[in-house]
Amino acid sequence: MSKGKVLLAYSGGLDTSCILAWLIDQGYEVMAYMANIGQEEDFKAAEQKALKIGATKDIRQEFVSDLVWPAVQSNLIYEGVYLLGTALARPVICKKQIEIAKREGCQFVSHGCTGKGNDQVRFELGYYSLHPTIQVITPWRDPAFFNKFPGRPALLEYAKLKGIPVVQTASKPWSTDENLYHISYEAGILENPDQTPPKDMWKLTVDPEDAPNTPERLSIHFSNGIPVKVENTSNGKIVEKDDLALFLYLNEVGRKHGVGRLDIVENRFIGIKSRGCYETPGGTILRAAHVDLEGLTLDREVRRLKDQYTQKLAEIIYNGMWFSAEREFLMASIAHSQTVVNGVVKVKLFKGAVYIEGRSSPNSLYDEKVASMDETDGFHPEFSEGFIRITSIRLRAYMNQKEKFQKQ
Amino acid sequence: MSKGKVLLAYSGGLDTSCILAWLIDQGYEVMAYMANIGQEEDFKAAEQKALKIGATKDIRQEFVSDLVWPAVQSNLIYEGVYLLGTALARPVICKKQIEIAKREGCQFVSHGCTGKGNDQVRFELGYYSLHPTIQVITPWRDPAFFNKFPGRPALLEYAKLKGIPVVQTASKPWSTDENLYHISYEAGILENPDQTPPKDMWKLTVDPEDAPNTPERLSIHFSNGIPVKVENTSNGKIVEKDDLALFLYLNEVGRKHGVGRLDIVENRFIGIKSRGCYETPGGTILRAAHVDLEGLTLDREVRRLKDQYTQKLAEIIYNGMWFSAEREFLMASIAHSQTVVNGVVKVKLFKGAVYIEGRSSPNSLYDEKVASMDETDGFHPEFSEGFIRITSIRLRAYMNQKEKFQKQ
Amino acid sequence: MSKGKVLLAYSGGLDTSCILAWLIDQGYEVMAYMANIGQEEDFKAAEQKALKIGATKDIRQEFVSDLVWPAVQSNLIYEGVYLLGTALARPVICKKQIEIAKREGCQFVSHGCTGKGNDQVRFELGYYSLHPTIQVITPWRDPAFFNKFPGRPALLEYAKLKGIPVVQTASKPWSTDENLYHISYEAGILENPDQTPPKDMWKLTVDPEDAPNTPERLSIHFSNGIPVKVENTSNGKIVEKDDLALFLYLNEVGRKHGVGRLDIVENRFIGIKSRGCYETPGGTILRAAHVDLEGLTLDREVRRLKDQYTQKLAEIIYNGMWFSAEREFLMASIAHSQTVVNGVVKVKLFKGAVYIEGRSSPNSLYDEKVASMDETDGFHPEFSEGFIRITSIRLRAYMNQKEKFQKQ
Amino acid sequence: MSKGKVLLAYSGGLDTSCILAWLIDQGYEVMAYMANIGQEEDFKAAEQKALKIGATKDIRQEFVSDLVWPAVQSNLIYEGVYLLGTALARPVICKKQIEIAKREGCQFVSHGCTGKGNDQVRFELGYYSLHPTIQVITPWRDPAFFNKFPGRPALLEYAKLKGIPVVQTASKPWSTDENLYHISYEAGILENPDQTPPKDMWKLTVDPEDAPNTPERLSIHFSNGIPVKVENTSNGKIVEKDDLALFLYLNEVGRKHGVGRLDIVENRFIGIKSRGCYETPGGTILRAAHVDLEGLTLDREVRRLKDQYTQKLAEIIYNGMWFSAEREFLMASIAHSQTVVNGVVKVKLFKGAVYIEGRSSPNSLYDEKVASMDETDGFHPEFSEGFIRITSIRLRAYMNQKEKFQKQ
Repeated sequence: MSKGKVLLAYSGGLDTSCILAWLIDQGYEVMAYMANIGQEEDFKAAEQKALKIGATKDIRQEFVSDLVWPAVQSNLIYEGVYLLGTALARPVICKKQIEIAKREGCQFVSHGCTGKGNDQVRFELGYYSLHPTIQVITPWRDPAFFNKFPGRPALLEYAKLKGIPVVQTASKPWSTDENLYHISYEAGILENPDQTPPKDMWKLTVDPEDAPNTPERLSIHFSNGIPVKVENTSNGKIVEKDDLALFLYLNEVGRKHGVGRLDIVENRFIGIKSRGCYETPGGTILRAAHVDLEGLTLDREVRRLKDQYTQKLAEIIYNGMWFSAEREFLMASIAHSQTVVNGVVKVKLFKGAVYIEGRSSPNSLYDEKVASMDETDGFHPEFSEGFIRITSIRLRAYMNQKEKFQKQ
Repeated sequence: MSKGKVLLAYSGGLDTSCILAWLIDQGYEVMAYMANIGQEEDFKAAEQKALKIGATKDIRQEFVSDLVWPAVQSNLIYEGVYLLGTALARPVICKKQIEIAKREGCQFVSHGCTGKGNDQVRFELGYYSLHPTIQVITPWRDPAFFNKFPGRPALLEYAKLKGIPVVQTASKPWSTDENLYHISYEAGILENPDQTPPKDMWKLTVDPEDAPNTPERLSIHFSNGIPVKVENTSNGKIVEKDDLALFLYLNEVGRKHGVGRLDIVENRFIGIKSRGCYETPGGTILRAAHVDLEGLTLDREVRRLKDQYTQKLAEIIYNGMWFSAEREFLMASIAHSQTVVNGVVKVKLFKGAVYIEGRSSPNSLYDEKVASMDETDGFHPEFSEGFIRITSIRLRAYMNQKEKFQKQ
Repeated sequence: MSKGKVLLAYSGGLDTSCILAWLIDQGYEVMAYMANIGQEEDFKAAEQKALKIGATKDIRQEFVSDLVWPAVQSNLIYEGVYLLGTALARPVICKKQIEIAKREGCQFVSHGCTGKGNDQVRFELGYYSLHPTIQVITPWRDPAFFNKFPGRPALLEYAKLKGIPVVQTASKPWSTDENLYHISYEAGILENPDQTPPKDMWKLTVDPEDAPNTPERLSIHFSNGIPVKVENTSNGKIVEKDDLALFLYLNEVGRKHGVGRLDIVENRFIGIKSRGCYETPGGTILRAAHVDLEGLTLDREVRRLKDQYTQKLAEIIYNGMWFSAEREFLMASIAHSQTVVNGVVKVKLFKGAVYIEGRSSPNSLYDEKVASMDETDGFHPEFSEGFIRITSIRLRAYMNQKEKFQKQ
Repeated sequence: MSKGKVLLAYSGGLDTSCILAWLIDQGYEVMAYMANIGQEEDFKAAEQKALKIGATKDIRQEFVSDLVWPAVQSNLIYEGVYLLGTALARPVICKKQIEIAKREGCQFVSHGCTGKGNDQVRFELGYYSLHPTIQVITPWRDPAFFNKFPGRPALLEYAKLKGIPVVQTASKPWSTDENLYHISYEAGILENPDQTPPKDMWKLTVDPEDAPNTPERLSIHFSNGIPVKVENTSNGKIVEKDDLALFLYLNEVGRKHGVGRLDIVENRFIGIKSRGCYETPGGTILRAAHVDLEGLTLDREVRRLKDQYTQKLAEIIYNGMWFSAEREFLMASIAHSQTVVNGVVKVKLFKGAVYIEGRSSPNSLYDEKVASMDETDGFHPEFSEGFIRITSIRLRAYMNQKEKFQKQ
């Protein structure tokens, strides 16, 4: 008698391979679901290990169109520095998993996340939002599981016992999570926040010190705040139309020039600080270019408001609340603002950095005549007098109050 | 009969030299005041031109201690990118000018700012705040002046007539404003926002393409959110104690490695967009390091609130409202937050970029044991279950509402 | 030779009657435009005075649908207390005025606002937004006008000279501005903020002390956050469908019960404080009811964000920036949030106050079973343990930091 | 052998009386702690029941000075309507409880809160913040307890068995929580949010319909945003100096006039909506008066920022995070703002409502001359022209962009 049907989010690694076997041991009927979200993975090998009882789903296109593009439109950034690559991937993975679970009549879903991290929260809030009555099995929070497997050796032994082929790569002293937007590194030696990561940790991008000595230049075309064409003005190559291809091309150029490395101590949703390193090549280029184009096309006050709401939006998404009323609320304004974010931004990539070299737009709010220091056409400098005098009324009143007060 | 006594903010350039002569022509008794705020300037030559009737004041120390340090504590940044170098200099220049004007019994102050920019606002709001009844003479907003001097040739001719020595440097096709925190470039050829600035425009920093091929590493020590010591771990040099010397050393290393260039379209207070290029070498290094240290030492929610108020503070300061109730209000919280921002940040400078390589603090909120993925000591993963389940209540309710609503 | 064609916003009062005559004296071709926005006014008399050369426009319907309803959806309130009755009327008055000015080929528009208030700003920002090249004549800021008319006697004399019939009502020692949403009182004896307004000043509402001794009850039905039906459950009367009729009925009941009086010191856009008294009967009832219904139907986090948006929106509208990018930005999200604000709120009106007595909604997020203290069905109290323990991690870390710090 | 020493927060009611006995049954050494925070309670009877093994602590003075006054300074309000009476009481109760627990060497503290509410969170976050290693026993979340006592009859039977004297009052069909700031009603028949509460539920305040037909007037004097003197100008009575006496007097007058009733659906921290009714007589008067005085004395921009801070602060306190870094952060600025909030506010109380009738301050920012519509002294109306023209630049640019865009 089966305890019921489980759909496991399978990663191809040792943990979820063991979880899969363990769930079967526990009497569940188990299906594996592996998302291809752009990570570097031996999908063939995974198929041999687990996907006899499951399937890979290529969700890269949805990831770019439904998550990455809105992130670009929002200039999404967490705690001023992190581009949210892991958090952005979760909703699209969850959505497909719940879709399959519903279709296959699974009463349970499961994942291999640990009990201290953000990802357990993101997966489960996604599951519950999309399927309020689903039941979730979380082996790494179940003492029956985590006491049985106190470390890697126990998992390896169990894998051997269960006939799970384990690629005998030397284990790295850190964990990674990868998708087409970014790769993250945490845990292991990185748990000392003062420890500089070793040169060979960084996997996606060329070390800036080894990057080409010649810069490369791109013109990125935006429509409604979304990139629609990339021209490499250094070599004439043009990529356009296909969202996925366009993003992957930006990644390729960004990786070559060492763009998008980051090393931070961040605040997890559960209230602990953790140290993470990230590489987000294409995303870093796009954010710089999009922010710049908004400088030209967005009204000043809209920009201020949007910047405030972006900070909040980043929190919401980091905390796993993509499927929430508040995310929809904020994005209604943000989407409205993007209709005028059209134009071209010129960027230079060199040794790890992105430089903006110019921008233009059919919806520009910049008026060369008005801005010019040499022209007075259409602008009466006398008006500034009134503007300043009126603006000073409040400040002068305060200073008078203060002076009077200090005398008391 | 003199019309009264004017204290002119004198820059040493053609404009304020002519304004000085013109004010005398108009029947004012004129004094010149020249602030040494770290700009590269021939103070000797200025003395010959104008300072017979005035004086230079070295306000570099006050600038660093009273303005730059609070900016560092606040992670001050305007529109996500600009470090506010010009806006930060104005309050300290104004303050000294009003101090002298009061001492010398001047009824008037004057400046050489144009009628379209931010600086006229910053100067005058500063003046009115510090001296509510002062009168301000603004030649570039006075038709009697600006019609007389429609362009540079008219000014040069007048200078010649008045015997003002003009250094015959070829005029650059842009304007600059410099102080020890930054230099700005605007106007002229930069008025086309799509025009890439010429390589020889950038004056403070080495072109990243020409910067050293070997990175240089610093350990920056903070106390109360303020830098107190810089160790150059690449060469053993240590700078500490003296605020000004410390900041100038960071500038020196930053300039060498091409750090802190920026090219943007920004929103002026008077509501027009303008294009500006900036170099802020030391400030860029300090901001990166300080933000990082706050990651380790500030509570998550304090950080979120502080980030919100920093955005507002940047607006306030950009708009020239340093001497305002709202600036004091925000800074009361920010100052309170900095008591725990103590520690050391390791940075690497290379070809225009600043990389963080580690950080430590006696006030760290990071707990290696709690953060560790390998330890469960003191953390019960089962609690995460409850946390997620409770957190999901609201999200599930919303999805139920939505589903019900869509069926209606 | 005419100097050009002016469309004057005509109020029917002494000021704009004199302005009309004065503009003709100055050589303009003048047309008068009088908005019927629900104020109590002798439109017949106005017609005799000025509308031979102009027309009244009934814009009450647009006012309610285009301005008042969005204000209700937004819970619009300024500085925590004022419902913005004057600011809301301006955009709809401006819009019609510019429409007529364009149609009639006027190069100029004019108004009778003084040079210290908010309304000059609201009118003119409206004009310039809707017709960027229009020219505005503002007699009360023109020394030629204001020096000629230093007080009421001079205006009366001029009116007599020009044959303008002036109703010989004793002048009240305050000014008013009225529309169907509210009436405001300011200036005159009210300029002393410690002076209690006389009982006979309040014009719209019955004095709460004289209001009926028996309360009256209404059930207000909302759809998309907009009132669509009012049932008077005390007498069985029902008003529905017609926006204007519905709002006027709420006004009628509110006035009878003395609802919506306010006496404040507020901050004008130009930076001075002013004292204003207001009566907003229907608006006060609607705001209380709408806020309450959002308690039942809006997600918590949406409510928090919307409350922030509303504070900003109130500023924007108060400052006369209805026709702005930022107003549209904020309203995109607010409109999105209102789709679920459907249901009925029961209110009691009594002696100046509005009491909420119950509410229901087909889109309620309230779940009686989950909320019940007596039921555990579907809720596991054990989860609260985990929630609290995880939530406490951050707080405990801070207290540890603090304790350690204090020991240093 | 005792399992250890527990300090129980004892309320005098049936629940905590049974918990006390049950904890002893479980083998704990139990002490009871009863806070006198101004609730109406038979402390004598409580003493007979439980306080043989414990003590009452009168913490009313601390409550007013340390919690209520900062709430007044902050204009603290949750979701726009609720004055946070329960949330404000918790920190002062917790603090004393932890103080005693430490002194008495208790390893455990305990409370009688249910597993669905806010108060469990508030108590426990308070405990953990003040004593990070304390252990908390929560019977209403322990199946061993809540399964044993599924309803009131089981508790009554157990009480009888244990010889706990139970006052045989008929049980009310709702729960209450009372302190000197407010009383709350929830649960029972109130769980239907459309059910109007019965007239006899409201306990603190006279029904507005039965309140005196004659209004009563107070002049409330503030110093640093804190009330320091109340003059009843209707009868000449003056209360001053003693914080507690002053607050209790405001309560007395407020109760008499039916001030401060509220009926809402609110959002609990754990994500569910609940319906609550509240009476906060003195607090409602004070908030209205303090908000009004800030209108006169606070700078406009400070007020806007403070209003934002207050919204956030209310969330923090509602959620039980009084002892947090973020509360301290916000209060640093709020405290700074209050130095100028000095003066007198005149209020009228009548039939449930509070009316402001005037205000004055030695720190007023209101300038009668500048505000006056009849005076131009010190104000040049021409400056408004420049102010408006400059302000319109941005709005016109946006309208041009929009028009151009719509044509595309």
